Amino acid sequence: MSGGGAALEALMARLARLPGLGPRSARRLTLHLLRERETVLRPLAQALLAAAETVTPCRQCGNLDDQDPCRICRDPEREEGMLCVVPEVGDLWALERTGLFRGRYHVLGGLLSALEGRGPEALGVDRLVARAQAPAVTEVILALPATVEGQTTAHTLADRLAGCGVTLSGLGLGIPVGGELEYLDDGTLAAALNGRRVL
Amino acid sequence: MSGGGAALEALMARLARLPGLGPRSARRLTLHLLRERETVLRPLAQALLAAAETVTPCRQCGNLDDQDPCRICRDPEREEGMLCVVPEVGDLWALERTGLFRGRYHVLGGLLSALEGRGPEALGVDRLVARAQAPAVTEVILALPATVEGQTTAHTLADRLAGCGVTLSGLGLGIPVGGELEYLDDGTLAAALNGRRVL
Repeated sequence: MSGGGAALEALMARLARLPGLGPRSARRLTLHLLRERETVLRPLAQALLAAAETVTPCRQCGNLDDQDPCRICRDPEREEGMLCVVPEVGDLWALERTGLFRGRYHVLGGLLSALEGRGPEALGVDRLVARAQAPAVTEVILALPATVEGQTTAHTLADRLAGCGVTLSGLGLGIPVGGELEYLDDGTLAAALNGRRVL
Repeated sequence: MSGGGAALEALMARLARLPGLGPRSARRLTLHLLRERETVLRPLAQALLAAAETVTPCRQCGNLDDQDPCRICRDPEREEGMLCVVPEVGDLWALERTGLFRGRYHVLGGLLSALEGRGPEALGVDRLVARAQAPAVTEVILALPATVEGQTTAHTLADRLAGCGVTLSGLGLGIPVGGELEYLDDGTLAAALNGRRVL
């Protein structure tokens, strides 16, 4: 509550509801935005509207881009043989930042969740199976988190992809780079011990 | 870097530069906004533009409102005798949330700072002196932080307001409510000891 009128209240309420923000950061942001009205506030509003107009999910892989198919799907340099399945576009971005994967992606748009009523149809598993059946595809990497939902999803996808004639793989398990052993959970340490490498 | 085109990159870059955000939260926010395009993204853009159009600083006190003078300055129920001087509009909001102060405000728009080259002119001290000289005003509360800049500003304002015939006051110093003594600095503890109350 600032008592500064409907537009001010509405902006703060909207900002406070964004993920990672709250009333305190919304107030701080609002003051910053109104102080930098022409250099920050209006350009941000325009950037939001421009993104709303131009950015769409790629019909093929689900990536976000202003082209459809997206530039990864269009790129002739990316290997058609490798298909990397990720839960969300943010996971695709994270993998792209490593610069290591040169194949194509498939964004599920979530994980199977009985709790949230998200079944295989909601994730478009049929679409994935159809892509995996393309003759060029030789390996499908299930880049899914090592959580209950992630592994349930991996099992279901592995079942559905079994007849497609592709190699199925998952991400390696182990200690994260730079992490201290002391703070890791038992499951991660057990997986790291099991997956130990000869030096 | 998401590789999803100019509009996507521009939006993420703008979000990442906002105070309290960074590249990681900007990516997360962008995905959330694009997922909730009609319910969150567009309304947020409209709220930003509406605030840019309608919210202005009050000519009298510096508060932000869609009315000028602001609704605190207009409110006949607020005491004209008490003038509370605050550094920023956010401080005014914080005091308003207590619901305890029923006078008027004066927003300086910052504190005196040799480092940032902000002198008495930049803070519009003359405007404050003029307001304090109004016959109705009997007390000026300098609600400034107990920092070097805050206290320098308080001293300068006290000098300039000395001839105005008003009572000058500052905020009480002491331990914050709910704070543990162990984590307080020596200055705060010393002030709390000096300002001890008989129970």
